[in-house]
Amino acid sequence: MYRVDLNSDLGESFGRYTLGMDDRIIPLISSANVACGYHASDPVVMMRTIRNMKAAGGEIGAHPGFPDLMGFGRRNMTLSCEEAKAYTQYQLSALYGMCRAQGVTLQHVKPHGAMYNMAAKDYELSKAICEAIAEVDSSLIVMGLSGSETIRAAKDCGLKVALEVFADRGYEEDGSLVNRSKEGAFIRDENEAIARVIRMIKEGKVKAVTGKDIDIQADSVCVHGDGEKALLFVEKIRGALQAEGIEICPLKEIC
Amino acid sequence: MYRVDLNSDLGESFGRYTLGMDDRIIPLISSANVACGYHASDPVVMMRTIRNMKAAGGEIGAHPGFPDLMGFGRRNMTLSCEEAKAYTQYQLSALYGMCRAQGVTLQHVKPHGAMYNMAAKDYELSKAICEAIAEVDSSLIVMGLSGSETIRAAKDCGLKVALEVFADRGYEEDGSLVNRSKEGAFIRDENEAIARVIRMIKEGKVKAVTGKDIDIQADSVCVHGDGEKALLFVEKIRGALQAEGIEICPLKEIC
Amino acid sequence: MYRVDLNSDLGESFGRYTLGMDDRIIPLISSANVACGYHASDPVVMMRTIRNMKAAGGEIGAHPGFPDLMGFGRRNMTLSCEEAKAYTQYQLSALYGMCRAQGVTLQHVKPHGAMYNMAAKDYELSKAICEAIAEVDSSLIVMGLSGSETIRAAKDCGLKVALEVFADRGYEEDGSLVNRSKEGAFIRDENEAIARVIRMIKEGKVKAVTGKDIDIQADSVCVHGDGEKALLFVEKIRGALQAEGIEICPLKEIC
Amino acid sequence: MYRVDLNSDLGESFGRYTLGMDDRIIPLISSANVACGYHASDPVVMMRTIRNMKAAGGEIGAHPGFPDLMGFGRRNMTLSCEEAKAYTQYQLSALYGMCRAQGVTLQHVKPHGAMYNMAAKDYELSKAICEAIAEVDSSLIVMGLSGSETIRAAKDCGLKVALEVFADRGYEEDGSLVNRSKEGAFIRDENEAIARVIRMIKEGKVKAVTGKDIDIQADSVCVHGDGEKALLFVEKIRGALQAEGIEICPLKEIC
Repeated sequence: MYRVDLNSDLGESFGRYTLGMDDRIIPLISSANVACGYHASDPVVMMRTIRNMKAAGGEIGAHPGFPDLMGFGRRNMTLSCEEAKAYTQYQLSALYGMCRAQGVTLQHVKPHGAMYNMAAKDYELSKAICEAIAEVDSSLIVMGLSGSETIRAAKDCGLKVALEVFADRGYEEDGSLVNRSKEGAFIRDENEAIARVIRMIKEGKVKAVTGKDIDIQADSVCVHGDGEKALLFVEKIRGALQAEGIEICPLKEIC
Repeated sequence: MYRVDLNSDLGESFGRYTLGMDDRIIPLISSANVACGYHASDPVVMMRTIRNMKAAGGEIGAHPGFPDLMGFGRRNMTLSCEEAKAYTQYQLSALYGMCRAQGVTLQHVKPHGAMYNMAAKDYELSKAICEAIAEVDSSLIVMGLSGSETIRAAKDCGLKVALEVFADRGYEEDGSLVNRSKEGAFIRDENEAIARVIRMIKEGKVKAVTGKDIDIQADSVCVHGDGEKALLFVEKIRGALQAEGIEICPLKEIC
Repeated sequence: MYRVDLNSDLGESFGRYTLGMDDRIIPLISSANVACGYHASDPVVMMRTIRNMKAAGGEIGAHPGFPDLMGFGRRNMTLSCEEAKAYTQYQLSALYGMCRAQGVTLQHVKPHGAMYNMAAKDYELSKAICEAIAEVDSSLIVMGLSGSETIRAAKDCGLKVALEVFADRGYEEDGSLVNRSKEGAFIRDENEAIARVIRMIKEGKVKAVTGKDIDIQADSVCVHGDGEKALLFVEKIRGALQAEGIEICPLKEIC
Repeated sequence: MYRVDLNSDLGESFGRYTLGMDDRIIPLISSANVACGYHASDPVVMMRTIRNMKAAGGEIGAHPGFPDLMGFGRRNMTLSCEEAKAYTQYQLSALYGMCRAQGVTLQHVKPHGAMYNMAAKDYELSKAICEAIAEVDSSLIVMGLSGSETIRAAKDCGLKVALEVFADRGYEEDGSLVNRSKEGAFIRDENEAIARVIRMIKEGKVKAVTGKDIDIQADSVCVHGDGEKALLFVEKIRGALQAEGIEICPLKEIC
């Protein structure tokens, strides 16, 4: 029996600013990465997102980011390890407590944007982030890129890990994503993208950009709810997974 | 056997900005109200403040405030109840989780500045704040002004309460503080201020600005660590309390 | 020959957050109130908005607000006069210089949201705001509500004023807007709203919520670009004004 | 006749947070770099700093920084050129207009912290910053490190430049500062530091860390007002300069 999680970034609205079609994507995913007020979101948005996700029966994870609302957490920032640890613990704790207030147990943590990308290649940064997580609750699952320093650091901190794959991205032979500026960075054909995901889940393999098959573990597939096209793709991939007998279920039932 | 708590606002530094002499006041108090990143503090400051307070053996409370760093949370802001509840729960949860990360159990919550003053007179605002607290952990103690709406709302939410008194402030007959712009707002003589506090603790009485004795319950005395003079006063009041056989101990042993 | 200005709030997007259909409303208005980074907007948005408005041939005004991005400047905040003056001068100067950088001369200033509403009733606050404006450039026009303290303070500071009217709002006999929570606050019928505006411009009269005709001066009509319905209304009112021989032109040609 | 400017960073306080002894350093310098609200300062602080500097007869420059109050603008951030240009123009314009409001003409611009350091090595970033400056007022002087990309870009934009030297820092043979982590980064002996500055001004030479004499142009010496020791050093260097017949005067009389 094959199983996979579908995760999406949620709760990214802020004050009067709305981002994403959260109401539409919530019924389609099994895990939500909820922004925590640094790169996006505010406490009112967080409270409502927890309520809506809980009502839909999905699981919730923290999506901490850099303190850069103006840049949506997508700009590289040079933080000390103490800062990275403290910022992660602050954001994670805020969401953790707000979930607890609604009787929800937080499932996982996935760093956002530039924090995700920088941590993937920087063990010390990943270590700081994972220590912050382990201190708050050592049963939390860390979601990261296969082969990333984040996954290595999470294991070193005794945390469970979930490996995230991307349907629409090409892979290098070492399991990293092909840089966005390079040929083969994106899988533009939806059917091909879906076929690749199904193979990752069933065979644990994907064809790298070089043409060589590599091993890959797909615990969760990252999907998006920021437009009609994205939502249609999520419905399509859900249909394809079900047709292949792959059950969609939250991370905590997989990891 | 008489007992009283000494509380002070702590962890108000931010980034490169230092505020207060936290290292000096920590050994002199039994409870710290730690800012949570909205009106003051940042995650690094919070993490260090928890560590230092824990090392000194004192207790920690959350000191949530308005989202107004530029005004230090001292300017009135008109929040909806949903906003007040969400902002309180966010800040409280952040500190709660960061304490948990260091093996510390949060003791109490005391709203800061304009939030404290506005809530004292506004039941709906107080209710929103107290609901936020009760949902996170119903064993938390709410610290507020005797006779305030905050205390009434806290009791309605099933929360324990601690009544805070001020050594250097005059009281109206209804137990509220004399407005800062009015005659009798401040008790300038230190010995008189200390004598008043001792009488509040031992007799449960204080002479109002009108000259009439009123009932007052003194669970905690608010002290300051923002200058040499303030620190000397804390040492003086500690000495006086001990000389009177009044034990200084954290709220959780009193409420 | 009758003339009137059409103004709309613009440049309210922030970072990755988009607000309003600026591209659609720009060709339909003669004056834009551009947010300055406190309650909305960021420098990139401001730079682009100036460029687009300049290309369309319209005029630009500053739209300063409270330092409350999370509340979109719509929540009352108690500022000192020094703070109100400094915050206004900072925001106004930022936009003023960025306009100058593109060869554009700033035309007017219109306070935003809660600052607009609080200032309308508070002479001291209005005075602080108008002093800030007069010091930067005494040829700037202050846009405000007929009969407001803002208009009185602007005149006292030697500034030109523009009186703004609202097509879809009811008026009290003293020229103030009917409170949003009261009967008669909104004129829901579009044709009635447009007829009222035309009468304000041609006769200088409007029927108050009490049924009595009052005097009103309409230099500028506030319109919105935040949805299809709002845009259609702007096109409709433009058509009606032109049919009535009322020329739409920027404030500087009127005041 | 030899002349040199003494510059110091000023107006770095924020809200209730005080930083630096501005009142003490103001009478000792000829040019102040005033923070503009992104990495430090707020509009009230800016207004007061302009007033105090004007009263003392010194000149004012803008000190724009990264939008990172929590990190005091000292952390590297990856901005696009459009962002760097817009952020610089926003901050510069804000201070420019606030100076104009007090009848003061802004003299120069010096990027702050990480923006200063990153721009020194990045021509594209420097170009974006200098374009922002030239568009606001092409008579502004750009202050930067000798041999930096900032100086090169400023000249390419047709701006006047001022070369800044550091009394307490060692130099590489190419005129760049010795990295803080390397041997010879700091000149710890005050008399040696002063002697080096005098030689830079009179002979246009300094001994690099390698022992070799290099050419250097000293238009302005950076000094600090953040402590008693720093203030004493400023008084000492002032005395030494005067004893050597070197006049201390603002940049605009030098460049």
